[in-house]
Amino acid sequence: MKNLYATMVAGCMAISCLCVQAQESGKTTNDDGQWTMPARNHAATRYSGMDQINAGNVKQLQVAWTFSTGLVHGHEAAPLVVNDTMYIVTPYPNYLYALDLKQEGAPIKWVYKPHPDRASQGVACCDLVNRGAVFVDGKIIFNTLDVHTVAVDAESGKEVWKTKLGDINLGETMTMAPLAVKDKVFVGNSGGELGVRGWLTALDVKTGKQAWRAYSTGSDKDVLIGPDFKPPYPQDQGKDLGVSTWPPGQWKMGGGGVWGWLSYDPETNLIFYGTANPGPWNPAQRPGDNKWTSSVFARDADTGAAKWAVQYNPHDLHDYDGVNENVLLDLDINGQKRKIMMHPDRNGFMYMMERQTGRIISAPQFAYTTSIKSINLENGLPELVQDKEPRQGQLVKDICPASPGGKDWQPSAWSPRTRLLYVPHNHLCMDVTASEVSYIAGTPYVGMEVTMKKGPGDYGGVFSAWDPVAGKEAWSIKEHYPVWSGALVTAGDVVFYGTMDRWFKAVDAKTGKELWRFRTGSGIIGQPITYRGPDGKQYVAVLSGVGGWSGAVVAGGLDTKVPYGALGFVNAMKDLPKDTATGGMLYVFAIPDAK
Amino acid sequence: MKNLYATMVAGCMAISCLCVQAQESGKTTNDDGQWTMPARNHAATRYSGMDQINAGNVKQLQVAWTFSTGLVHGHEAAPLVVNDTMYIVTPYPNYLYALDLKQEGAPIKWVYKPHPDRASQGVACCDLVNRGAVFVDGKIIFNTLDVHTVAVDAESGKEVWKTKLGDINLGETMTMAPLAVKDKVFVGNSGGELGVRGWLTALDVKTGKQAWRAYSTGSDKDVLIGPDFKPPYPQDQGKDLGVSTWPPGQWKMGGGGVWGWLSYDPETNLIFYGTANPGPWNPAQRPGDNKWTSSVFARDADTGAAKWAVQYNPHDLHDYDGVNENVLLDLDINGQKRKIMMHPDRNGFMYMMERQTGRIISAPQFAYTTSIKSINLENGLPELVQDKEPRQGQLVKDICPASPGGKDWQPSAWSPRTRLLYVPHNHLCMDVTASEVSYIAGTPYVGMEVTMKKGPGDYGGVFSAWDPVAGKEAWSIKEHYPVWSGALVTAGDVVFYGTMDRWFKAVDAKTGKELWRFRTGSGIIGQPITYRGPDGKQYVAVLSGVGGWSGAVVAGGLDTKVPYGALGFVNAMKDLPKDTATGGMLYVFAIPDAK
Repeated sequence: MKNLYATMVAGCMAISCLCVQAQESGKTTNDDGQWTMPARNHAATRYSGMDQINAGNVKQLQVAWTFSTGLVHGHEAAPLVVNDTMYIVTPYPNYLYALDLKQEGAPIKWVYKPHPDRASQGVACCDLVNRGAVFVDGKIIFNTLDVHTVAVDAESGKEVWKTKLGDINLGETMTMAPLAVKDKVFVGNSGGELGVRGWLTALDVKTGKQAWRAYSTGSDKDVLIGPDFKPPYPQDQGKDLGVSTWPPGQWKMGGGGVWGWLSYDPETNLIFYGTANPGPWNPAQRPGDNKWTSSVFARDADTGAAKWAVQYNPHDLHDYDGVNENVLLDLDINGQKRKIMMHPDRNGFMYMMERQTGRIISAPQFAYTTSIKSINLENGLPELVQDKEPRQGQLVKDICPASPGGKDWQPSAWSPRTRLLYVPHNHLCMDVTASEVSYIAGTPYVGMEVTMKKGPGDYGGVFSAWDPVAGKEAWSIKEHYPVWSGALVTAGDVVFYGTMDRWFKAVDAKTGKELWRFRTGSGIIGQPITYRGPDGKQYVAVLSGVGGWSGAVVAGGLDTKVPYGALGFVNAMKDLPKDTATGGMLYVFAIPDAK
Repeated sequence: MKNLYATMVAGCMAISCLCVQAQESGKTTNDDGQWTMPARNHAATRYSGMDQINAGNVKQLQVAWTFSTGLVHGHEAAPLVVNDTMYIVTPYPNYLYALDLKQEGAPIKWVYKPHPDRASQGVACCDLVNRGAVFVDGKIIFNTLDVHTVAVDAESGKEVWKTKLGDINLGETMTMAPLAVKDKVFVGNSGGELGVRGWLTALDVKTGKQAWRAYSTGSDKDVLIGPDFKPPYPQDQGKDLGVSTWPPGQWKMGGGGVWGWLSYDPETNLIFYGTANPGPWNPAQRPGDNKWTSSVFARDADTGAAKWAVQYNPHDLHDYDGVNENVLLDLDINGQKRKIMMHPDRNGFMYMMERQTGRIISAPQFAYTTSIKSINLENGLPELVQDKEPRQGQLVKDICPASPGGKDWQPSAWSPRTRLLYVPHNHLCMDVTASEVSYIAGTPYVGMEVTMKKGPGDYGGVFSAWDPVAGKEAWSIKEHYPVWSGALVTAGDVVFYGTMDRWFKAVDAKTGKELWRFRTGSGIIGQPITYRGPDGKQYVAVLSGVGGWSGAVVAGGLDTKVPYGALGFVNAMKDLPKDTATGGMLYVFAIPDAK
């Protein structure tokens, strides 16, 4: 008992330390009352030290004010709050609203409209979402669907620069939230379902000029793999694997988009991010490991030089992208202080990795799986279930997780108080039939007919609390639909998340007990945040507005009788139109003053 | 003083009597906890006897739940509440949602989608609004933009009947809320800006079959003018005035749509409603009185036979439709009990009329006007200001009210407690140039270039309390934009209305003092209602979602640099995009239970 207690205390101290570091790495993030990047800090903890709203009083929460974006596609973004202004980036056409928190009801301060190319709507795989902006150096920086990054002056709303990064005619789009580190901002592309070649690009914050680009496929030179590259596992070691692990030339249309989350460790100056699925989905068309798709990279933030990489899912069979968040924590594991990152992968396993080396410390299952038995800690490889491999012209049934994974982009939150990771995720399976597909630039390049369904027990989502040290779930809540929103946790020991059937929920961070809920207008797939208003009060904000891949059946008005719609997601969400319409709306909550 | 006191008491008694009668005339309306037609009752008072929420505690009001329609056109409808179900009819595509109030957060019970012809969007003059449905005989009945009336089973959501009433190829649309009386439902058409010929049609509630149709122009036979017709003023007396007061054949494309409000007096079995502007707007193309445009009709509810009519604006010059509400009251005027109706007309004058005869008792000015000096009570005619008449090829400036009138469709509310009529209205002027226009079926037929602007003092709207007996305003509140929402007043002596810049307000019914306000997501042009929930609590509900004619600049994404947009309304609303985006959202408010 004594040892366990000592371990816990050490763990807590280490965590506190990490969080302070992470907050200090961004100039503006050491004020708990602001929210300057979607993941809250470079460590991506989505934890706020505010505790005015807490487990004891959260039941008194009420709507303080609301704001409509007037748009009906999926609203996945996190609002930002900087200097008493709230910034909201919308789905296509990617408006950026600044709302003046100093005035009652937060009127519009300005709106910036980038006017993205309309044709970009035609090449986006999965609704027209945007996952948010970042504040840095007096600018709000975000991506537009038509593959541009824009910097807007945070005060005036004037465009500072706008950089074209890719080509919608090749199927490229951008939906991810940039990460800013020092004088650079990192952005990546989407388009794995259209044979796009993935990349991460660093732009100069002041000018928008490209500092470097690291492709996810191709030669070591293109991937920015050089002498410093030290991948921990043999299958990731070798020259030009981004070419040689593909059929000739296939890497050029091989996917590996970078549309997910980035984290940054100031101590090692490393950024961490994952790459998306290989293209096409049909694995028969791409024998080989297909590096560096479904992988994670650690790169030097200044030069982009790769330090290590691990391919989670070599020769990915099921669209198991590696783009999910990497939450950076300093934990005490078996009496040892470890600098780790937590990565709940699409494949259903919870990777705890040493972030200096990429070595996997543990990778227990966190979601229901039939396609992978376990992760081999010796070589980092998943042990596949052979009869779940897609076959051309044959129906393969009950592959779990389905393509959106045990968990998709919806980001987790970490509390240094409870030492739990709060993970919004999916509970989905699928039946698939592979087929030969030809590459035509800018058109779907999938080669897989997919029908998804809710997992065993007929529910589609789970919100769970994960104990990294114990390597197991602390508690979990079943939800009817995939939990496609982000999570937020606070020093008030309250966790917030939203559901696709229109509930915004507050649960006890320790027990998962539901403390409060509110019925929003549309389903929630956004990222909740909290901030301190100019009046000193704590507010909680979230966008509702169903859509995204999971909500495409509603946002795209898809026919529920066509199960293959939205890459097969429609079949698992046939009942969603009965629960929610679309409609982008910001809700801001507070505990009312006594009257 | 003694006499005045006696008058007041008598007045109160008379009013109470009227209100009870009005409520008893509809089977379901004698329960104050329900809301079965947009105007609350056949007398169109929009008054609720509920008083849980009152002037003393309304400041505690909070959002109970919300619901998004997922649509971005103007939301002008009143929700209905019947048997613990809320019904919402949306703008085009005119979905009908049933929300189950018995369950927490009011989940969708069913949605009925009528699939109106897409082309109807192209002929609607002023956004794609719908003003609501009516509950009668177990059915929800409403109109679709493509000129159909639909009856849907209130319990199951199944279509009972659907009747085609007109032709979008002629420019006809339907946006009005039907009124139901006994076994009939009354519906009318829109399209005065497209040379439509107006009509009111009675349909059988059970079958949807047409019982009768009364045109607004044409022969007495078509207008259902027969031996019972006794108009009070000479200019409205004569044979076939609906033909003879027009240039030959012009009555066929002469406007006079019936897109506004109807009231019903069970004592006389009369319905009352107004007709819209003549077509085209250019008055030079239609010399004559242009009967029966810009008029009010009293008709037998069973046969449609006209009992009387008054043409408010003969040979209308400024698009002063006569479609505004007629609120039926029994008042004590100068010691006499009078059965009256109150009609705040587009022309800026507040008509108090005897509803058995149509005689105008008084018609003082309630809005700012430059185009009409006064209403002559001898003959019922407006005394026009000659130099405000539009002239072909010449700019005529500073015509007030502008085309949307001193007041447009936005309906008033009457409190029998305060004996005040609460009038949401406009404060707009315009500059116009008339031009010759040719009639082409289904295309704009206006012949007037209009530029509107806010009225003197640079504000666009007013919410005022009108004392009918005194014939003057009791108090008023200036608003930056036209007050385009309906009004609601309760026995708690609270008046509710919404603004286009996103405030939902509660003001003291006696003094106009603001008691509470809430910032909705989008501007409000809907009609607030109140109801009793299954838990016995009082709720207040309103749709936000800016649009309509006044909000077309936002809902239609119109260019603010083109002042003639939306028939000139854009110029008066250039600043609206800075204050609100679109987005249809229902807000339901209540006073929270102590926690």
